[in-house]
Amino acid sequence: MSNAPTDRTRLRRMYERGHYDKDTLYSILDATPQCFVGYTIDGAPYVTPTFHWREGNHIYWHGSSASRALKSSNEAQVCVTVSLLDGFVLARSGMHHSANTRSVMLFGTAQKVTDPEEKEAKLCRFVDGLFPGRAASLRPNTTQELKATTILSLEINEASAKIRTGGPGDDEEDYALPIWAGVIPVKMVAGPVEPDPRNLPGVEVSDDVKNWRGIG
Amino acid sequence: MSNAPTDRTRLRRMYERGHYDKDTLYSILDATPQCFVGYTIDGAPYVTPTFHWREGNHIYWHGSSASRALKSSNEAQVCVTVSLLDGFVLARSGMHHSANTRSVMLFGTAQKVTDPEEKEAKLCRFVDGLFPGRAASLRPNTTQELKATTILSLEINEASAKIRTGGPGDDEEDYALPIWAGVIPVKMVAGPVEPDPRNLPGVEVSDDVKNWRGIG
Repeated sequence: MSNAPTDRTRLRRMYERGHYDKDTLYSILDATPQCFVGYTIDGAPYVTPTFHWREGNHIYWHGSSASRALKSSNEAQVCVTVSLLDGFVLARSGMHHSANTRSVMLFGTAQKVTDPEEKEAKLCRFVDGLFPGRAASLRPNTTQELKATTILSLEINEASAKIRTGGPGDDEEDYALPIWAGVIPVKMVAGPVEPDPRNLPGVEVSDDVKNWRGIG
Repeated sequence: MSNAPTDRTRLRRMYERGHYDKDTLYSILDATPQCFVGYTIDGAPYVTPTFHWREGNHIYWHGSSASRALKSSNEAQVCVTVSLLDGFVLARSGMHHSANTRSVMLFGTAQKVTDPEEKEAKLCRFVDGLFPGRAASLRPNTTQELKATTILSLEINEASAKIRTGGPGDDEEDYALPIWAGVIPVKMVAGPVEPDPRNLPGVEVSDDVKNWRGIG
């Protein structure tokens, strides 16, 4: 990513187990829509949970045009963080307990997507990214809906990733202790779909739902 | 929480579906250890994923004393956000797609826990909160380990919560469309435990692991 010796570069250097190649960043960003957008209002930090999606080397997120979070992030420095929890790592001392996670922090200046056609295309991509083919099956967005929606983008430029996998790393002498150590893997799974009671008779679960990409 | 008409109060007012009673806040904070800490460095926002735990009306998080994230958060304004994803809500228009989530944003000034005995007690509580009874079974923390660990606390004072449950809420006329709508529920589940290959012969999975509280 950027090689400028900024404060953020220094932060990245402190990150253990750093993985900075774009394929790694992309794979983590694509593994879940959940992200946490950091921004400031009057110098104070805020972290808003939302959904993101990626197209090429940008991520996008959206919400109501009235949203203070979005207004405060537009053309402002943001930090967008994604973190997937893969497991609890239990060691023989408290200190070596850990967690298996895949995380990305993205830094930069968020920019609004302003062109209505581009906004519509982005929103369709967001839906289709989760549920392939669904956007074309929906009632199209109205002009008013598009106006009421703000989409922000962030170029994937200054970024850091951190991945931890595997079992505990204990102090050598602690391996002699009769303490159970290991990993409790966790993952996000989907339950049976819950059809809306107002679905029309004969409307079955669509392929886009059957083919949803899952999380993790 | 605080009734001061601050900017943050205004932010809270904009939050849809607000639930501000402490039991609701506590139940969301207790449902997962995963949190996202927002802080600033030179005015720029950062969001660091970490684990928290709650004792009474405070939450705590910890890390290496060398951590820039912790140093920058200590005695500084922070925003700690927790968000649990419970489901994807599929509607008949893109606009009414949504997500079932439980989220909390906490605001305030983080404070370091400085007393070594208190630090030890807090760390044990963290471990026991996830794996009841485990702390007493472990090799105790050393003075050096405690010194190398920073624990930050935040009082649960200024806060906001947001909960969405249930199916889609479509525009009335869209219910006539032959589009499948409904919810894909998701949850975090644990897989089979993976014992460390270096566990001593005869050391079986301990009760604290069998009784771990899960997530969600």
